[in-house]
Order: sequence, then structure tokens, then C-alpha cells
Amino acid sequence: MTENSTALQIALAYHKAWTSKDLDLAMSYIADDIVCDAPAGRIEGAEAYRAFMAPFVQILLDVSMIAAFGDEQTALVMYDTTTVPVPSAPGAECVTVKANKITYSRFLFDRAPFEAARR
Amino acid sequence: MTENSTALQIALAYHKAWTSKDLDLAMSYIADDIVCDAPAGRIEGAEAYRAFMAPFVQILLDVSMIAAFGDEQTALVMYDTTTVPVPSAPGAECVTVKANKITYSRFLFDRAPFEAARR
Repeated sequence: MTENSTALQIALAYHKAWTSKDLDLAMSYIADDIVCDAPAGRIEGAEAYRAFMAPFVQILLDVSMIAAFGDEQTALVMYDTTTVPVPSAPGAECVTVKANKITYSRFLFDRAPFEAARR
Repeated sequence: MTENSTALQIALAYHKAWTSKDLDLAMSYIADDIVCDAPAGRIEGAEAYRAFMAPFVQILLDVSMIAAFGDEQTALVMYDTTTVPVPSAPGAECVTVKANKITYSRFLFDRAPFEAARR
């Protein structure tokens, strides 16, 4: 794992915050003008991003980090989550960090089991 | 990006091979007893893994790497793909490399648009 990586430190601090269900702390690492490309489409701005994350945090039961790497500007993490509807729902995020805030996130997870749980 | 990383070099060579649709070359980086945890479940052994990859390679139109990192034993990559049924189908792979072969892969993509395209 790359040491002393600014982007990775921010990504891990953000990860620790949202997985601890502390959305206020998590959002302190998110730029006001964040752009997030998620499976369902693009999310723009911190308010929309928080509205996207909040329901997921509510159904979150457990998280384990699979791998986390980064360099000065970019971090890439993969983790597994246990959620109320889906027992194993891994996610991956590639984030761009500028001035200690996440300005861009490419966010990836499998929507299929969540859609199946809703049906 | 971490330099001189054995796992990353293998992961990138594997990535280049399968995205060039050279499955024989791609499989030369895959251990005979590979275990791959994919969205639909666990795939065990090189033969089953090749059978899993082959249909995807057939529908593959284009690939762009989003990020790739690694250390001695582990590599984590995220990429976007353009496929026949799904215009943007990103994937992420966290691979474990031993003796220059990928022995384990945690593979992540969103099945939802592929399921929608089939319906």
C-alpha cells in the first residue's frame, strides 16, 4: 500500500466516517462541487451526494476493506459491505482529491441484488 | 501509481491481453486453481474462469483504464468498458498474484444494465 498518500489518507478518512455512519464528518471530506459518476448516473454537488449516501448508510450493517491504494491525487478503494437487504454488496470508488476534499468519485457497485431485494 | 510492482505488472499484462481479445495470452496470467468472486458468485478453476470471461470479451468494443495500483502481492484496477449491449460498463478487479499468476480475483461490475438489456 502506498504510504503518505494525501488522496489515500482523505479517501480512508472519508471511508471511516461514512462506515461509522457519521455523515457530517464524511461530508467534511467532500467538495461542495463534487461530481460522482455512480451506477444510476451522475450526481452533482454535495447536497445531492449526501442524499445519495444517506439511504445506503441507513441500511449498512458492516464493512470490510478489501484493498486501498493511492497517490498524490487519486485513491482507489474496494470494500465489502453487509447491508439489510443484501448480505454481500461490495463497492469500489476511485476518487480525485484536491485541497483535501474529494472533488470527483467514480463509484461502482452491483445494483442487481438491490433491485432483486426490492421486487 | 506504484512502480515496479509485480502484482500490478501481472494485472496490467492480463488486462492488456483480455482487452485485446487474446484470451490465450490472458489465461497465461491466470493460475490453474484461480478463485474469482464475481457478482453472480464464486468461479473456481481456470477453465470455468475462461468460460466466464469469453462471452464478455466477445461483446467488448472498447476499454479505458480509470486507475491501477498495486503492491507486491495485490493489484487493484478500475476501468470502463464499452460493450455491445451496455455503452458504459465499468469494472473493478482486486487480484492476488503469486508466482506471476493471478490466484484470486474479486471482480465487481454492475449487472443491472446487462439484465435490463436482456429483457
